[in-house]
Amino acid sequence: MTDTAARPTRVVVWMEGRHEQIDEKVQRLYPDGMAGAIAAGLREQFEGPLEVRIALLDDGPDHGLSEEVLAATDVLLWWGHKAHGEVSDEVVARVQSHVLSGLGLLVLHSGHWSKIFRTLMGTSCTLKWRNEADRELVWTVAPSHPIAQGVPSPIVIPEQEMYGEFFDIPVPDEVVFISSFSGGEVFRSGVTFTRGLGRIFYFSPGDQDYPVYFHEDVRRVLANAVAWASPGDREREHPSLARFDSGWFETESEQSVKARGSGRTPE
Amino acid sequence: MTDTAARPTRVVVWMEGRHEQIDEKVQRLYPDGMAGAIAAGLREQFEGPLEVRIALLDDGPDHGLSEEVLAATDVLLWWGHKAHGEVSDEVVARVQSHVLSGLGLLVLHSGHWSKIFRTLMGTSCTLKWRNEADRELVWTVAPSHPIAQGVPSPIVIPEQEMYGEFFDIPVPDEVVFISSFSGGEVFRSGVTFTRGLGRIFYFSPGDQDYPVYFHEDVRRVLANAVAWASPGDREREHPSLARFDSGWFETESEQSVKARGSGRTPE
Amino acid sequence: MTDTAARPTRVVVWMEGRHEQIDEKVQRLYPDGMAGAIAAGLREQFEGPLEVRIALLDDGPDHGLSEEVLAATDVLLWWGHKAHGEVSDEVVARVQSHVLSGLGLLVLHSGHWSKIFRTLMGTSCTLKWRNEADRELVWTVAPSHPIAQGVPSPIVIPEQEMYGEFFDIPVPDEVVFISSFSGGEVFRSGVTFTRGLGRIFYFSPGDQDYPVYFHEDVRRVLANAVAWASPGDREREHPSLARFDSGWFETESEQSVKARGSGRTPE
Amino acid sequence: MTDTAARPTRVVVWMEGRHEQIDEKVQRLYPDGMAGAIAAGLREQFEGPLEVRIALLDDGPDHGLSEEVLAATDVLLWWGHKAHGEVSDEVVARVQSHVLSGLGLLVLHSGHWSKIFRTLMGTSCTLKWRNEADRELVWTVAPSHPIAQGVPSPIVIPEQEMYGEFFDIPVPDEVVFISSFSGGEVFRSGVTFTRGLGRIFYFSPGDQDYPVYFHEDVRRVLANAVAWASPGDREREHPSLARFDSGWFETESEQSVKARGSGRTPE
Repeated sequence: MTDTAARPTRVVVWMEGRHEQIDEKVQRLYPDGMAGAIAAGLREQFEGPLEVRIALLDDGPDHGLSEEVLAATDVLLWWGHKAHGEVSDEVVARVQSHVLSGLGLLVLHSGHWSKIFRTLMGTSCTLKWRNEADRELVWTVAPSHPIAQGVPSPIVIPEQEMYGEFFDIPVPDEVVFISSFSGGEVFRSGVTFTRGLGRIFYFSPGDQDYPVYFHEDVRRVLANAVAWASPGDREREHPSLARFDSGWFETESEQSVKARGSGRTPE
Repeated sequence: MTDTAARPTRVVVWMEGRHEQIDEKVQRLYPDGMAGAIAAGLREQFEGPLEVRIALLDDGPDHGLSEEVLAATDVLLWWGHKAHGEVSDEVVARVQSHVLSGLGLLVLHSGHWSKIFRTLMGTSCTLKWRNEADRELVWTVAPSHPIAQGVPSPIVIPEQEMYGEFFDIPVPDEVVFISSFSGGEVFRSGVTFTRGLGRIFYFSPGDQDYPVYFHEDVRRVLANAVAWASPGDREREHPSLARFDSGWFETESEQSVKARGSGRTPE
Repeated sequence: MTDTAARPTRVVVWMEGRHEQIDEKVQRLYPDGMAGAIAAGLREQFEGPLEVRIALLDDGPDHGLSEEVLAATDVLLWWGHKAHGEVSDEVVARVQSHVLSGLGLLVLHSGHWSKIFRTLMGTSCTLKWRNEADRELVWTVAPSHPIAQGVPSPIVIPEQEMYGEFFDIPVPDEVVFISSFSGGEVFRSGVTFTRGLGRIFYFSPGDQDYPVYFHEDVRRVLANAVAWASPGDREREHPSLARFDSGWFETESEQSVKARGSGRTPE
Repeated sequence: MTDTAARPTRVVVWMEGRHEQIDEKVQRLYPDGMAGAIAAGLREQFEGPLEVRIALLDDGPDHGLSEEVLAATDVLLWWGHKAHGEVSDEVVARVQSHVLSGLGLLVLHSGHWSKIFRTLMGTSCTLKWRNEADRELVWTVAPSHPIAQGVPSPIVIPEQEMYGEFFDIPVPDEVVFISSFSGGEVFRSGVTFTRGLGRIFYFSPGDQDYPVYFHEDVRRVLANAVAWASPGDREREHPSLARFDSGWFETESEQSVKARGSGRTPE
């Protein structure tokens, strides 16, 4: 509904960035890093104006995710794997707060075990896995969903790490994609959640050992998901607890009640 | 399916217990404490054998919720209000772990803002409120749900604290009850969630300032919810991350794969 | 994602149109008919190019809903009340087929008991009601949903017919709005469903005896819902049953398999 | 909650019964017919007292499903394939009415295309298929669901017809099982729905060309599903449309309001 031509959608690709430093295979597959490949994919597939920035674990104590950066971001993509434990709890709390206020969040592949995803889910986010170059087929089970537009069913990924059920996540709001693997396992590979005012999409295809982020269909899914998760011009506001007098809605707005300051603990 | 006659359902009512110490009105309304009223209600309404214990915030550093107690509990009820901050983070992590392993959890009224509920939800769990003796009507919107059996629609609660939307929780698995209040507000007052292997029911009716836990219909809902949330004879097991060889299911069980110890980080 | 500037969203407002013929109060409230008021509201509130047409029960044997009209429509709005039985079964089957192929459908108020809604739901779609000018408050419970943008929570409708639970519909995909009424009843008043490739939104505010379709917030909800339900440039295709050889996805597309004609009954 | 020892759960296995008449392979695989194998499986796996009857398409004009039979049934299982079109519309309407009133319904395999399932779903219920003895793996994605108890994940079915996505059903209330097939396809193979007061479970494993209904795990799933879908002692009542005076809940029950007869069309 909003006039998206008015301003670009502002995206930050957050990347752990450690494999790129030490792993030759990853350096060969992703010469610009995984973040570079993801950012290039968004620029290629996203319709409409877009601003993409990259933030890294090693970008200072806040990992490149200051209050200012997050407040000026519509959608955050999160890729981590071997250094989840190094992400500061303060930054995790900050990102959670921004998601509850409306920031869109895309959690990618091994990000299933990141602090931010586990914090937003409340579960262990564990799964079965095997890194043996299984072929992954990504089937659409919600064909009218905006995230599934423009990709075939199945998306064929010649080689991928296997992620299998049981995936310990809450029941998703929507299951968009289900994958199968050569070995026979299945996985809810594209799922949505709402937390507060924020929209979250988890998408499992993508790994440092395979060139998945160059796959055109994977790129299209990520671009679709950015459009879906973006709050656009919705007001960004953290849900709050506040007291309301009887009949308040006849005389004043919710905003003005909160501005008066009645956010004390319920009696 | 399980032969519930074989053993009693084991319930722990966890109570903050502070209002009972300092507030005359609460002492008058709840001479045996709120925990006593809730426990009596379960004994009155639960069909089948039942063991009910009470645990309090002041029951030592683990608030009466040791590993041994939780491992021997089917369903935990949680009521807290003014001392959420005094609950130890270690106990919260322990309860979360047991819920993910299969422990049933009923979160009551102001427990919406407890650490354990917010941890399991991933959201702020904030809401609108007003403590002005509104009449609450609790309407059933899922009439075939086990938790809604045996109560009228609406349940009429003459005086209650108002809790109103927006209630910042994830989209529930099931909305069983929706309440309205004299002031016109509405609230999703009975909602279910799954986290890991555990079933969670949040039920908002119940407050220290009103005798809600003596209300026969409220008691019936809680008894129904205990039966619904109990894992019965299901194996209690924490979801885990493990590597599985191709074709593992042809030769060995999931349990044996995990026992071999392949729970290392995915590559 | 699609460039909505490229072509207008094409809407048909389908109206039973009988109250307008015989009921002076309705003629006074809705001098251009209810369809006229709804169409004017969409023109007022919809962002982007829009084409709105009106079709009536009395527009010939197909009630203005020929194959050609439906194939050239993005979103159909449906208002009926006292003449549900006069709608031809053939037209109902045609509309159902188009919804499954991707046509968006908005079912309004007393349309809950229309043949098309009951056919798509599979339930009785019954409810409680009372036409005594209750005040209706429409509360948002999904604040990040596109349909809820730009309206206050609650929307205050001074006088409305009461619709109350239990509303016999399938569990909705999403509950966007819940209403309360002066009399204390509650109602899931704004709910979404997916059927085939089609998106459906049911919205209860709106009645021939009250000027609800002139209410700015109601108009905004309908405009939002048109944008949400429109298939845009998605291909319109009826889901089909077809046989697929092993490995078909390696060599040909789903479209080509179907075109070869393997839609015979499974063996 | 109900004392299930008090009376047996009453089950009717409805079977089309045509393959058994004409197909030697089916006669060899299922010497007592598919209905006989299903009934034997329930008797073997169901915990608690059980009465199982068989009804056939050829059992007279009502296919063995009279008002009296349905009123005395807790759960109906439905298997049909090549003669869906011969099922009388009157019987379909009768079964639908009983489901809305609380009858449990299990729809099996090719029953996905039966009139009763399509009527209750509102969609085409189409899918992909291939009858080439694929191995089917049935993975549990809701491990705490009562229907999933006591079976391994995956259930391994050596040979089965392939059913694949997109399966054109409404979004299920719960996805319990997801299957993969040798050919790489996936399918939501165990899904639940609520319609009116009735609980519905669709389960795809089971075919006339393979001995699937002798598989112990498949039998256990069906027995679990019968327990889950049974209304037990819940009152059986068709949802109805009725007028309610303001404050009716203060003075009389919903039942008495309806008994007074206010089921007229809303004004």
